[in-house]
Amino acid sequence: MSRKVMSEVLKSRTLLYRSFGEPEKVLELATVDVESEPKKGQVLVQWLASPINPLDINSIQGVYVYRPTPPVIGGSEGVGRVVKCSPGSAFSKGDHVTLFTMNTPFWTEYGIVDEEDLLKIDNRISVPMAATLMVNPPTAWVMLKDFIDLSPGDYIIQNSANSGVGRSVIELCKAFGYKSINIVRDRPAIESLKTELWKLGADHIFTEEEFAKEGRKFVKTLSSPPKLAMNGVGGRSSLGIAAVLEKGGTSVTYGGMSKKPHEFSTSALVFNDVRVRGVAVGMWMRQPENEEKLELCLREIQELAVAGKLTATPMDHVPLERFQEALRKSMESRQKKQLLIISAQTSPSKL
Amino acid sequence: MSRKVMSEVLKSRTLLYRSFGEPEKVLELATVDVESEPKKGQVLVQWLASPINPLDINSIQGVYVYRPTPPVIGGSEGVGRVVKCSPGSAFSKGDHVTLFTMNTPFWTEYGIVDEEDLLKIDNRISVPMAATLMVNPPTAWVMLKDFIDLSPGDYIIQNSANSGVGRSVIELCKAFGYKSINIVRDRPAIESLKTELWKLGADHIFTEEEFAKEGRKFVKTLSSPPKLAMNGVGGRSSLGIAAVLEKGGTSVTYGGMSKKPHEFSTSALVFNDVRVRGVAVGMWMRQPENEEKLELCLREIQELAVAGKLTATPMDHVPLERFQEALRKSMESRQKKQLLIISAQTSPSKL
Repeated sequence: MSRKVMSEVLKSRTLLYRSFGEPEKVLELATVDVESEPKKGQVLVQWLASPINPLDINSIQGVYVYRPTPPVIGGSEGVGRVVKCSPGSAFSKGDHVTLFTMNTPFWTEYGIVDEEDLLKIDNRISVPMAATLMVNPPTAWVMLKDFIDLSPGDYIIQNSANSGVGRSVIELCKAFGYKSINIVRDRPAIESLKTELWKLGADHIFTEEEFAKEGRKFVKTLSSPPKLAMNGVGGRSSLGIAAVLEKGGTSVTYGGMSKKPHEFSTSALVFNDVRVRGVAVGMWMRQPENEEKLELCLREIQELAVAGKLTATPMDHVPLERFQEALRKSMESRQKKQLLIISAQTSPSKL
Repeated sequence: MSRKVMSEVLKSRTLLYRSFGEPEKVLELATVDVESEPKKGQVLVQWLASPINPLDINSIQGVYVYRPTPPVIGGSEGVGRVVKCSPGSAFSKGDHVTLFTMNTPFWTEYGIVDEEDLLKIDNRISVPMAATLMVNPPTAWVMLKDFIDLSPGDYIIQNSANSGVGRSVIELCKAFGYKSINIVRDRPAIESLKTELWKLGADHIFTEEEFAKEGRKFVKTLSSPPKLAMNGVGGRSSLGIAAVLEKGGTSVTYGGMSKKPHEFSTSALVFNDVRVRGVAVGMWMRQPENEEKLELCLREIQELAVAGKLTATPMDHVPLERFQEALRKSMESRQKKQLLIISAQTSPSKL
C-alpha cells in the first residue's frame, strides 16, 4: 500500500475568503482537508492563536499593497505548535513556531508548512505574546535601533502610546534605559489608562491636549530634548512631537491612525534640521541588508518576552467560530485587539 | 598730525532700524559717518545693490531666529566694490565683494569691513546677479547636490518653480543634465510665465491644479520616477510632489510659502520609504563640515553665472531713497523681487 493511503486526512476548520470585500461578508468558516504526514522538509503545524491586525482587515478588503489571489486563508501573525515532523527535521514535536513568509495562512487549525518558512519561538513565551511577536515589538525595536544611535538616559517621544506598537516602545525603552515621553488621546477613564502605561514603564504621559498646552515648556525642563519621535497618528499630532526634537532629531512614522496626512512645520524641517522617515516593518524584515539586524531584533525581543519585560497587549480571546464578533470589534475604535483562538484543543488555561 | 585727523570721513546714506517692528515704520534713511581709511586687515567697500529678501522682513520684524541688537543696518545679501585697501591686502580696488558674516549691513553706501568677512565675487557677473548670489542659487545647489546622488537624465520635481530658488533649480538642472518637473500656482497670464520657465530650461511645467489631476499619470510615462522633490510651499503641495517619488526618494523643504504645515502621506513615508529633510542654506554654509562643499558650490555658481547659465531672477531696481515703496512691494504677493540700488554713483547702465 502506498504511504498516501496510509496517511490520515485532518479536518481543519479554516477562516478563508474567496473574494475581496467587507471582512464580515466575505470571510467564511470552512473545513478543509490537510494531509497529516509532512513530506521531507515540511512539518505539520497546529495553529494556536492569531490576532486580527489592521493589516488583516486591509488585506481582506483588497486595499493592502500585497494582494494574493483568492481563495486566501486569513491571518498575518500567529503562533502554532509542531505536531509532526519528517525525518531529519530541524524542528521537534511541541516546538512553538510562526510563519515568516509573504503568504501567512494562520487562520486554520492545521497546516503543512515548509520548514524554511518557519521560525521557532521560545516555548517559554505565552501564547498571546508569541502570537503577536512579529509585528508590533519589531516595529518598536526597529524605530529605536535602526534610525539613530540612542544611549541610556536619552529621551524619545511618541504618540499613540497605548497602541500595540506604543506599548512595545514603552517596554523596550524601559529595558534599554531610554526615557519615554508618551502621548495618548484623551478618553473616559484616562487615569486608569495612564496607570496602565506607568506600570509598563512610561516615564512621562500626556494627553494630546495636555501636550499641546504644556509640551514645549515641559521639554525645556529636561536635561536634553528628545532625539527621536515615533508617530503612528499623523495630522497635528505628528507636528507636535516633531516640534520638540533636538536639532537634527529624527521622526519615524509607522502608521496614520488619524487618516490625515502627517504634518511637519517649516521651523522643524528647515531651521531645526529634523529628519522624517517612515518604516513598514514587514518590508524592513525582508530586505537582505537587514538580515543580521533582524536576527538580533528577534533574539532580543524573545529574551525580553521570556524575562517578562515585554508583554502582550491587552486582547480579547475569541474562539475561531466567533470570528464575526471579533472582526466587528476589530473595526470599531477603542476596542481591545482581538486574538483568535484557532485550535479548540488548546485549553484556555494554557493561554 | 595723527593719521586719524588726516583721514576724510565719508557721509554714508544708510537704511537702519532702532527697534523691531513693521518695516515701513521702523526703517529710516539716516546718514552715518564712515572712516575712509581702512586699518590693516580691513577694506573700504562701496555697497552697490542688495535685494529685499523675505528674511530681511522677518529680521526687521524681530521674528527671525537670529536677532541682532538694534540699531541695525538692514540687508542680508548684496554686492559692493572695494574702493580702498590697506597695505598688503588680499583685495584690490575695484574687486566685487560680498559679506559672509552673521551681521550683514549691506544697506549703506560705505562700510569699513574686515577682510576675513568678505568673499570676492567674479567681476564679470552682473551686479543684480552678484547681489543675489548667496541665498537662492546655493539653496538650489545644496538641495541638488548634498542630499542624494543624481546622474544626468534623472528626474527631479519642485513646487514654487517660479520663485528665486525655483528658477535657480531649473537653471542648475539644465546645467547638470537633470530633468526638471516644475509646478507653479495658477495665475493670470500663466502661459507667459510658463514660456519664461521653458526659456530657463524647464523640462515639464504644471500648475498645481494640472498636477493634482494628471501628475501621477504623467510620472508613470517617464523612464523613471523623480528621485528628489524640492518643496518651498507646504500644505497639499508638499504631499503631491512627495507622492510621485521613487521608492526611497528624498523630499527637501526650504520654505513654507503657504504658511501651512508640510504634509506627507502614510503611503509615501511608510510604504514608499520617502525621506523628508529640510535645509536653511545660511546654516548649512556655516557648518564647518561643509567648508569644502561650500567652496565648490560658490565656484560652480559663479562659473555658471559668468557663462550666462545662471541668471538673476526678474527684479525691480529701486534707488535707496525709495525704500518704502520697495518694502511695500516686497510684502505684497505676486510682486517682483525688489533690488535696492544702494550707491547713487553706480550708473544704471552698469547694471
